[in-house]
Order: sequence, then structure tokens, then C-alpha cells
Amino acid sequence: MDKETEEFSVLRLSERGNTYVEDVVAREWPLTIVLNNRELATLLCSPTNLTYLAIGFLLSEGLLKSKDDIKRITVDEQRGVARVETGEDEDSEGEVLFRRFITSGCGRGVSFYNVTDVQDQAKVESSLEVSKPEILTLVREFQHRSQTYRTTGGVHSAALCDTSEVLVFSEDIGRHNAIDKIVGECVLNGIATADRILLTSGRISSEILLKVARRNIPMIVSKSAPTSLGLKLAVDLGVTLVGFVRGRRMNVYTHDWRVSRDGH
Amino acid sequence: MDKETEEFSVLRLSERGNTYVEDVVAREWPLTIVLNNRELATLLCSPTNLTYLAIGFLLSEGLLKSKDDIKRITVDEQRGVARVETGEDEDSEGEVLFRRFITSGCGRGVSFYNVTDVQDQAKVESSLEVSKPEILTLVREFQHRSQTYRTTGGVHSAALCDTSEVLVFSEDIGRHNAIDKIVGECVLNGIATADRILLTSGRISSEILLKVARRNIPMIVSKSAPTSLGLKLAVDLGVTLVGFVRGRRMNVYTHDWRVSRDGH
Repeated sequence: MDKETEEFSVLRLSERGNTYVEDVVAREWPLTIVLNNRELATLLCSPTNLTYLAIGFLLSEGLLKSKDDIKRITVDEQRGVARVETGEDEDSEGEVLFRRFITSGCGRGVSFYNVTDVQDQAKVESSLEVSKPEILTLVREFQHRSQTYRTTGGVHSAALCDTSEVLVFSEDIGRHNAIDKIVGECVLNGIATADRILLTSGRISSEILLKVARRNIPMIVSKSAPTSLGLKLAVDLGVTLVGFVRGRRMNVYTHDWRVSRDGH
Repeated sequence: MDKETEEFSVLRLSERGNTYVEDVVAREWPLTIVLNNRELATLLCSPTNLTYLAIGFLLSEGLLKSKDDIKRITVDEQRGVARVETGEDEDSEGEVLFRRFITSGCGRGVSFYNVTDVQDQAKVESSLEVSKPEILTLVREFQHRSQTYRTTGGVHSAALCDTSEVLVFSEDIGRHNAIDKIVGECVLNGIATADRILLTSGRISSEILLKVARRNIPMIVSKSAPTSLGLKLAVDLGVTLVGFVRGRRMNVYTHDWRVSRDGH
């Protein structure tokens, strides 16, 4: 039994009758993120790679700029607490954090287009080109690695790839968290994200798109659907958005010049 | 073109070649919730039933107790702002709200088991019993009504049912929001939730389970998977959790005495 799953006794009703069986479910765990002794948020997540998740969350939310800002990270897995200390003066950032978390609040919603998040975000510049067969090969490898999903049906996956292989892979009960784990791992381990591709099992909403643009990633690929605001951000921020990759088909919604045409 | 969807031109790559087509995507819209002139949170949602969503959110988060507390609701759809005024004194609740939203923060995570949320929640008492054929009939009707999902692939559904039919139905890009819309509609229109069943298209995590228990709903049914913490809360709070309803099969994870056995 790994940390990502738990066994649970369940009454299964099927054509063959009713039986009690042991089922495997995705483990859900709270992780409270404390930045400079200030409790910021409690994420509900899969309890793996919690350091990557904490750092990725802070980077995605714009509360941390780079690895160099980090003075210390302490993660208490059992209690579900990640403490991150930076060199910044606590008092000066207090007011900014307060305002930010009142506006962006729950559901990780950020009031785009009113506030600084999107306006401050530079357009992704990258001459990356990928062919349809390359995308299909990456998606196949990605799905092959999504082990936990096949066991429990309750977990999202994300991966950073170059045009030929999966470089970093993560899983989490939350699609946001799975991407933040990738972000944290890349930044902490010095893995470049520019000119690379993010794969996700989840829908591509505005928040997901902004995470990708923040890391200067020029392409996001999913078997799922985008939302209208995800598309609008992809257009504005120069990100190629590929959705509904199923079988040998896919939809290229934005900046389709990055997908080289091969006829089939 | 309805408010829930938008058209978008997309490059479709398939076995039959590459063509530009008009695709329908789920509309994503920010809704900022202002309670007694205090900006609480911005939800990213489908722009329908925004009054229900705002009230349901406040009820689910425990920031509103009943319909009687509401003095005024104003929704500006274009700007995406819902203002709710209650009779409570603003200053006295300010500190509580602030602390709450710093802890519960993003991803709508709530640090269960540490704080008051779960401890304060009474166990759901209900002698509701439902048969397997009744559940299958409800799920069939539910899926039939999930029109937008079939068009865009990007929307979750939720419904309140009795043992024979769907009473209230909602859709949203967020699975939390879809349930909050049901909660808001029921409370504003005086529709009883006790002894009834909630259907959802999404996974059943701890936050979803707590929403259901808060409305005294004794059963939740999904085609998707539960998480470990969702199951733990279902056990503790007396909720029957049915997952993986697919074809003629289902898993009854908790309090299975509410599902009457019929052999098949």
C-alpha cells in the first residue's frame, strides 16, 4: 500500500450479485502552507512530493519569485504542514498577502483582467514546434504512467515533456496541485520549463493556463476540454492550447503554428 | 448561443485531415462574492444561476445560516459581482472571516479535524432507503439532462432527487459550484434537502461530502471515485456514499443499509 492510496471495504452491486470487496481509493490529505510564519492556505492533496507542491503553489500564486528567495523549507508530512521561509521582510509583505488572499480566495479563483495577475504576465515567446505524431507519442507515454488513476479513478496527472519524452511526472487528487508539483520540482531541481510542453489529464481553465504561462511554457496538451477564459488567456499570453487528444484526433485551439502539419 | 457556452474556431487534426471548425466551449466567468461590503472570494464559474451560486457558497462555507439572515442580494452579471447583505454587525464578524479565509484559503481547502467545521457538524439522521433500480433510474435521468457536458466536455452537473425523480438540476465548470448552486436554489426556494439524494458528476472529496452533510442530505451518488477523506467524513457524518455508478454496477462505500438489496 503506497502513500497515494488506501484500502476501503465496499459493497459492490453488480449483475453478478452483491459482495463486499476491498477497494483502493485515492488518499486525500490536508497540507497547510505557512510562509514566513503566516498561515496562507490549506490544500487538500495527495500526500506525495509535498515540498514540490508547497514551492510550486507559492510560485504559481506569485508569492515566490525564484529558488534563490527560499531560505528554508520544512515539511511535516504527518501533521500536513509545509513551512517556507524567505529573506523578505515580513511586515512589508503582510498587507499584500492579505489583500491577495481576500480577492483570490476560494477555488483558487483570481479576478483576472481586473488585477495585476494577467497584466503583469509577459507573453510566452518560444519557437517550439511539435508534430502531431510527437504529441500522440507523448500522450501515450503520459497515460501509461498514470498508474494511480487506473487503480483508483480519482487522481489527476501532469507532466513536463520535451518533444520526445516525459521529463517530469506528477499525480494528485487535484489538477491544480498536480501542475504545482511539476512547477516546484522543476524550479527546485533546476529543470528548464521554457520551450517545453505541459501535459495534463484535467480541463484547461484560466488558472491552469496562468500557471503554465508563469513558467514560460509555450504549449499545454490535454485529453480534456478547455474553458472560454482558458482559451482567452492562451490567445493573449502566446500559449498553444491543444485539447481533446483522443485516439488519433486532437483540437488545436490557439497559436496552432507550433503544431507542424503532416497531413495526418 | 446560450450563456453557458461560447464558440471558438479550432484547428481539428484527425485521420481525415486538418480542418478549421467552429467548436463550442464552456464559458468561464469570474464571480466575486461580497458579503456586507467585504470582498470574500472570486469564484470562476459558469455564468448561470449566479444568485443561487453566491447564496449556496455562503451557506456551504458556513458564512450564512439560513434564508432569514439575508437582507438583500444584488447580482451584476456583466461585472461578475454578487453582493449579499445580512443583518449582522460587520465589525464583529470581520475578524472571524479574516481568520477563516486565511486558513481555508485556496482550492477551497478547509483544515478539517483541526478546526470547527467537522466537529460542529451534526451526523445526518435519516431513514431514507433506496433500491439499486431506483438509483440506476435517477442516474440515467441525470445523465440525460447533462446537455452541456455532451456539447463541450467541460462542465460538471449536480442534482437533488427524491427516490423517483430529479427535483433540482445544475451545471457548472466547477464540481463545487454545481453543488453550491443546488444548495442556494433549495434554500432560497424552500425545497427540502433532508431525506433526499444528491447526484454529482464529479469526484467525492472531503469538501463535497461536507457540503452534503451541511444540508442534512443522507446520500450522495456519483459515477466517479471518492477520496479517502471523503469516505472518512461519510462514515463519521452518517452519509451513504455511492460511487462508480457505471452500467448496472455501483460501489456502496458507507452506510450501505440505505441501499435496499434486490439481488440484482
